[in-house]
Amino acid sequence: MTQIKLEAIQAAKERVSPHLVRSQLSRSETLSSETGCDLVLKFENQQFTASFKERGALNKLLLLDEEQREHGVVAASAGNHAQALARHGQRLGIPVHVVMPKFTPNTKVEHTKVFGARVTIHGDNVDKSMSLAKDLADEYSYTLVHPFDDINVIEGQGTLGLEMLEQDPRIDTVVVPIGGGGLASGIASAVKHIKPEVRVIGVQVDTFNTAYAHFHGLEPTEERSALTIAEGIAVKRPGAVTRPLIMSLLDEVVQVTEQQIETAIFTLLEFEKTVVEGAGAASLAAVTAYPEIAKGRTALIVSGGNIEMITLSAVLQRGLVRKSRLVWMRVIIPDVPGSLAKLTQHLGLLDSNIVDIVHRRTSHSSTIGAQPLNILVHLCGEEESDFVVDSLCKQGYDARVLVD
Amino acid sequence: MTQIKLEAIQAAKERVSPHLVRSQLSRSETLSSETGCDLVLKFENQQFTASFKERGALNKLLLLDEEQREHGVVAASAGNHAQALARHGQRLGIPVHVVMPKFTPNTKVEHTKVFGARVTIHGDNVDKSMSLAKDLADEYSYTLVHPFDDINVIEGQGTLGLEMLEQDPRIDTVVVPIGGGGLASGIASAVKHIKPEVRVIGVQVDTFNTAYAHFHGLEPTEERSALTIAEGIAVKRPGAVTRPLIMSLLDEVVQVTEQQIETAIFTLLEFEKTVVEGAGAASLAAVTAYPEIAKGRTALIVSGGNIEMITLSAVLQRGLVRKSRLVWMRVIIPDVPGSLAKLTQHLGLLDSNIVDIVHRRTSHSSTIGAQPLNILVHLCGEEESDFVVDSLCKQGYDARVLVD
Repeated sequence: MTQIKLEAIQAAKERVSPHLVRSQLSRSETLSSETGCDLVLKFENQQFTASFKERGALNKLLLLDEEQREHGVVAASAGNHAQALARHGQRLGIPVHVVMPKFTPNTKVEHTKVFGARVTIHGDNVDKSMSLAKDLADEYSYTLVHPFDDINVIEGQGTLGLEMLEQDPRIDTVVVPIGGGGLASGIASAVKHIKPEVRVIGVQVDTFNTAYAHFHGLEPTEERSALTIAEGIAVKRPGAVTRPLIMSLLDEVVQVTEQQIETAIFTLLEFEKTVVEGAGAASLAAVTAYPEIAKGRTALIVSGGNIEMITLSAVLQRGLVRKSRLVWMRVIIPDVPGSLAKLTQHLGLLDSNIVDIVHRRTSHSSTIGAQPLNILVHLCGEEESDFVVDSLCKQGYDARVLVD
Repeated sequence: MTQIKLEAIQAAKERVSPHLVRSQLSRSETLSSETGCDLVLKFENQQFTASFKERGALNKLLLLDEEQREHGVVAASAGNHAQALARHGQRLGIPVHVVMPKFTPNTKVEHTKVFGARVTIHGDNVDKSMSLAKDLADEYSYTLVHPFDDINVIEGQGTLGLEMLEQDPRIDTVVVPIGGGGLASGIASAVKHIKPEVRVIGVQVDTFNTAYAHFHGLEPTEERSALTIAEGIAVKRPGAVTRPLIMSLLDEVVQVTEQQIETAIFTLLEFEKTVVEGAGAASLAAVTAYPEIAKGRTALIVSGGNIEMITLSAVLQRGLVRKSRLVWMRVIIPDVPGSLAKLTQHLGLLDSNIVDIVHRRTSHSSTIGAQPLNILVHLCGEEESDFVVDSLCKQGYDARVLVD
């Protein structure tokens, strides 16, 4: 098994730190009291390309020899690794060629091209892009920079572990998302060298849970082209280098659901005022679902912040619905002039802001005397929602909350 | 005119700093290159109650004598000042009574009560709440803590100026939002004492622009109960103490529009991964609208992050529409089975994700052979929007972008 040496991670830290953001590590009083844990957050979404991936990519680039630099590098990635490589390749004058799968959102293509990288769109998934990237490496003498299964990349990610322990030596537990496992392997290697008693917990999303399954001797969830909000850790399986490191160094691996991750994104936005992508919210999702993993002072790696604004907007809307802060109600009203005015006046007096109204006259139960009206109102939560429904019923309305 | 002494601000800093977050000051490469300026951001949304208001409120509380502490304090506020006072009153065991105007969102009431403060709802606006607060102060021997027109509060806000110059002594310009003017007066007092050549620029929203009008010898916009996204600076006029400080110490006051502030909120969310309220985005809105004010290294005060999630979600949606990333198109299709399938297939091939469809058959222009269909699609911007419309037209559709 390949071991990652402390000296190599320390050397990587010397090499990359001057060119990266020393991201904030700070305690969250609110999240600590919400979860009953002692939580500090490491904000890797503060890196220039908004993810930790710059650490590994930059370390790899700085270790290339003169000839390799001239030929340039190639990678297969639809996301943060591509941006990280493109950004530092441009800074260092090293040509970067990225192969991205079809259906990569145009914004991600643009965010890679903006750093001068050449982008080729190829294959239905990253595995197929990777096979072209390997061919290109052979043909053009590019150095292939694997997003996680590369010792120098893992050493780069390990710098995050050293940096955290410098910022807060009292950390007892680190919770880290696992996709291919580069970050988890790097951090665990760093931390266990320096302070072996620190526990390192990996988190996967339950639709891409091969590392979780390996760790627990289970069958992974059947492979399928699942869509997940945490596309940054939607990796089919860990690599040849990272898998044994995860198996030997991690203390626990847990899995979280899509909805738990969405809730964590919402919470980080509302309470920590920070924008995170799905993978970046996985650590908080894990300690919320399983507070027992957070023994002592627990560092949550907020690994990145690259989420499309339309996705964030949808997560916000769904979060408001789940917390009963946006509530669809169905109220039966007679189909005569003035009846909507009367209803909306009642709602106004209850301080319920109306966001949407759908008045379809073609439902099964509708008659001219009794039309179902769907009305979306902005409220404070379940308690107020119950109160509003009760008040409407007391006014003689047939009213209820719609749940889909 | 009341002057704010450097020694008093320095003493305030000694007093409050141990109990507050030393918020991050960092350069934004992206915003600097977008605006052509050299921009650093001061993230006061990282304070525990997510705004700078804790500085002034805490300084005031720490200066109370034993008897005043026992009697407690009272304030009129619907927002950040109330939370700041409640939070530190609770920490210090000082009773806090807050008067909030009617229509204060329930969440703000809750966020104040959570710190053990007593909340009374009174009056249609903060002026009316203030008059009750004054009565309560007389009746119960409370100390009234004015949100801005109080020397100790201004000294507290001034600590932000000292802290910034410590963090980056090369700052040439500071851009600060103005509501009542407490923050602007405090920062300008601090900065001009230490480095008189630093320029301090105030920003107002154009619907609450009394300080702007005074500064330029103009009539303020007629008083009206304008709603603004920047409710944190929606103050009718600066105070007796702050007005002369603003007039004498500031180098410039500019005003920005509602839409400029919304755009700045969106930009800070997308590029800086940070959640800000309207007032907190005003500084970025100002340098975006008037880059000439940003001479040399320019610090933008991100004053707070308290924005309702439903409001943020609406700002995101409107931002996507304004940037042509969410586009309503009107396409005429025949009202026969299969015609919607044909249209959506074309859109799918163009990588346009469909977000909403409204098919009303009751419009003026509709016939059975030609029904207008409104369709909301997710795109990358104007260029792609034009491309999609062109492609549909080439397929024989009568298609156009809907602009409201």
